[in-house]
Amino acid sequence: MRCLDILEAVKGRRSIRTFKNRDVPEETIEKLVEAGTWSPSAGNIQPWEFIIVRKPEIKKKLVEAAWGQSFIAEASVVIVVCANTNRSSEGYGDRGVTLYCLQDTAAAIQNVLLVAYSVGLGACWIGAFDEENAREALKIPNGIRPVAILPIGHPAETPQPRKRRPLDQIVHYEAF
Amino acid sequence: MRCLDILEAVKGRRSIRTFKNRDVPEETIEKLVEAGTWSPSAGNIQPWEFIIVRKPEIKKKLVEAAWGQSFIAEASVVIVVCANTNRSSEGYGDRGVTLYCLQDTAAAIQNVLLVAYSVGLGACWIGAFDEENAREALKIPNGIRPVAILPIGHPAETPQPRKRRPLDQIVHYEAF
Repeated sequence: MRCLDILEAVKGRRSIRTFKNRDVPEETIEKLVEAGTWSPSAGNIQPWEFIIVRKPEIKKKLVEAAWGQSFIAEASVVIVVCANTNRSSEGYGDRGVTLYCLQDTAAAIQNVLLVAYSVGLGACWIGAFDEENAREALKIPNGIRPVAILPIGHPAETPQPRKRRPLDQIVHYEAF
Repeated sequence: MRCLDILEAVKGRRSIRTFKNRDVPEETIEKLVEAGTWSPSAGNIQPWEFIIVRKPEIKKKLVEAAWGQSFIAEASVVIVVCANTNRSSEGYGDRGVTLYCLQDTAAAIQNVLLVAYSVGLGACWIGAFDEENAREALKIPNGIRPVAILPIGHPAETPQPRKRRPLDQIVHYEAF
């Protein structure tokens, strides 16, 4: 796998919602997940779980869970990232469940997206979905919370970068 | 700035808690923050705010807020990352406040950590601190939530990688 310079990857990554009808091999998906696991986590608890979806009928259920975002079904692979709230709760109680496990999994997701982009794939971070529906579609037990749906495939669009807030609006010195 | 291959950065980054007594220039810190702003965010709301701390007396207050994690005061610079929950709430209500703005800022933090590592700096993601104390130390108003303290400096240690959960324990196919 050819890889990109980290700053190039950080700046060049876009959300991709249109995919070519072309497969992403299993070993590439494993590389992406492995990159996710190299994220830091509170107390090294590693609260992440990854569900790899390729079956059309399950993708269709994820489209429904995500209120009709039909491009999910067009991606070669969908990775559903879950937070194992049991693990974070054991380690850190309520702050583990409501903060750390969400941050830890989000950092892992960002790793996945960056490495996906760097190997020429496109992906999109979907947070807008009905968790109960996703839970049902994927037989996710209690204590595991689905936190993101990531359709992944070969990009069939090249979106322009979206505008960023200028630094002087979001950077503060010594106090807010 | 020389930069690293993205996979190298993802895998090579460690949490650094010992720093050399050596300055990190302002333009480098700006690059790190800029990298943070290239993270994706729900609806492109970009709920991140960054407080750059260099004054020893304020670092000391952050050490107290973080229950005595004294290495915070030894870092050349401390970036305190906040979630602008007002912005996320306007866009997405409760899910914006309790999920999206935490994920968005966590992805931004991961970008900061990766680019810091890639330019030879060390950093640590501290989530264990008293938010009210941090709020007071940095005059953070309501509607803005401090979510991470990131001490940044030239590393004076080279920690070994911490063990990762094996993929077969955290990867699931088609269902959990």
